Amino acid sequence: MLTRNSSKPLYEQLKDMIELKINSGECKPDEQLPSERELGEIYNVSRITVRQALALAEQEGLVSKVHGVGTFVNRPKIEQELKTIADFQSTVTQHGLIASTEMIETSVVMSDVKLSKILNLRGLEKVLNLKLLGYGNDSPIVYYNTYFPFELGQEMKNVALEYMEKEQPFSTLDLYKNIETFKPTHVEQTFEASAATNDLAEKLQVDLNYPLLEITSILYQDQIPIEYKEAYYRGDKYRFFTTRNIHIS
Amino acid sequence: MLTRNSSKPLYEQLKDMIELKINSGECKPDEQLPSERELGEIYNVSRITVRQALALAEQEGLVSKVHGVGTFVNRPKIEQELKTIADFQSTVTQHGLIASTEMIETSVVMSDVKLSKILNLRGLEKVLNLKLLGYGNDSPIVYYNTYFPFELGQEMKNVALEYMEKEQPFSTLDLYKNIETFKPTHVEQTFEASAATNDLAEKLQVDLNYPLLEITSILYQDQIPIEYKEAYYRGDKYRFFTTRNIHIS
Repeated sequence: MLTRNSSKPLYEQLKDMIELKINSGECKPDEQLPSERELGEIYNVSRITVRQALALAEQEGLVSKVHGVGTFVNRPKIEQELKTIADFQSTVTQHGLIASTEMIETSVVMSDVKLSKILNLRGLEKVLNLKLLGYGNDSPIVYYNTYFPFELGQEMKNVALEYMEKEQPFSTLDLYKNIETFKPTHVEQTFEASAATNDLAEKLQVDLNYPLLEITSILYQDQIPIEYKEAYYRGDKYRFFTTRNIHIS
Repeated sequence: MLTRNSSKPLYEQLKDMIELKINSGECKPDEQLPSERELGEIYNVSRITVRQALALAEQEGLVSKVHGVGTFVNRPKIEQELKTIADFQSTVTQHGLIASTEMIETSVVMSDVKLSKILNLRGLEKVLNLKLLGYGNDSPIVYYNTYFPFELGQEMKNVALEYMEKEQPFSTLDLYKNIETFKPTHVEQTFEASAATNDLAEKLQVDLNYPLLEITSILYQDQIPIEYKEAYYRGDKYRFFTTRNIHIS
């Protein structure tokens, strides 16, 4: 119950109540919440309080307002376990969404100094650039911008085209299953939050400066770098989780 | 050299050039770049091209414009290795910044249903809430909102006050060193990008909806949860990195 003699303002209490109903499963994903008027009557609070509560719930990603229609419960973010490397399709499918991959571009470009250093190339050499968009249902979730040394890149491109033909969703990691001579053995990754640039905003269908989870990966086969990848996940769609040990001295 | 017969627009080439100078160490952190006029002369391009290049460099977090003064090279983000758990002070100090911790609030509150579930409490019980801000030099970097079961919380609070008195920077993880009976053995974490709420924007001195790296942690001692923590890192200040193995079937 909401209580007026609490240090927590009423609208926060109401937001907590909505959150609880979502987390407990009482309110299901995509379900429409009662109208502002109805919520005000149910909880005996003003429309202003209801509006503040819904605005906060929206800010926290719990619900989405659809103008002129109402407020709907969001689907929880897609979670991916960091330790195991699950393939793109099963990660997305596990969350009840239909996965698909769009090949935005595949091109041969010259590496710049930074990329040559990362891929351990002798100078500025030809590399293959593969740009992919991963979808859950019809919403873009992740944009991959990937660079391969030329030879591997040609193979990757061919396998990617096979996947596209079969309409089978994939990330670059999935493609290695179909490649004999190259198999990554470990990966170095960085995780950070970044703001969507114009280009990324357009691809991921979000506003400029929208929060994205940016993960860069350098994949190695033994000591040799074979792939450099920048992945941008929509902040509202994706979450990684991991378990690790702690040693306190 | 910038070239006019490239598919890459001139301003992107100029941005690449600036990026290269920063990455190679030729331009140092906090150094002022030449003026727009000077850059135009050096690279033989228009002021408009220079302005576009600088805007892109700023969007990518390479430089910051100070109105009426000029453009300055940013410090690279603080990197933290995910596998080892380094203490807050040494992580920050390693990057040439002076670490400090501000204790925003310590209070006894009633757990809600979600928190009781996480901390495995029997019902809605008293818990200790510790709110900390971690600084590098004088800029806030991370905001920690932490909950402990009551008994451990009292000990944590006392140790935190000792650290504050000695003006020694800390995160909650550091405090366990001074506590006998509670030592976390592992942690479950989620990583995601989220937008700064009003409250977080104010604490971290950023705009509303600014991208933050949000990491939630549940710390366990053997099978017993002993701490729940929400950490919000400024996207422009912090980056995590890790290395892990891959097995492609």
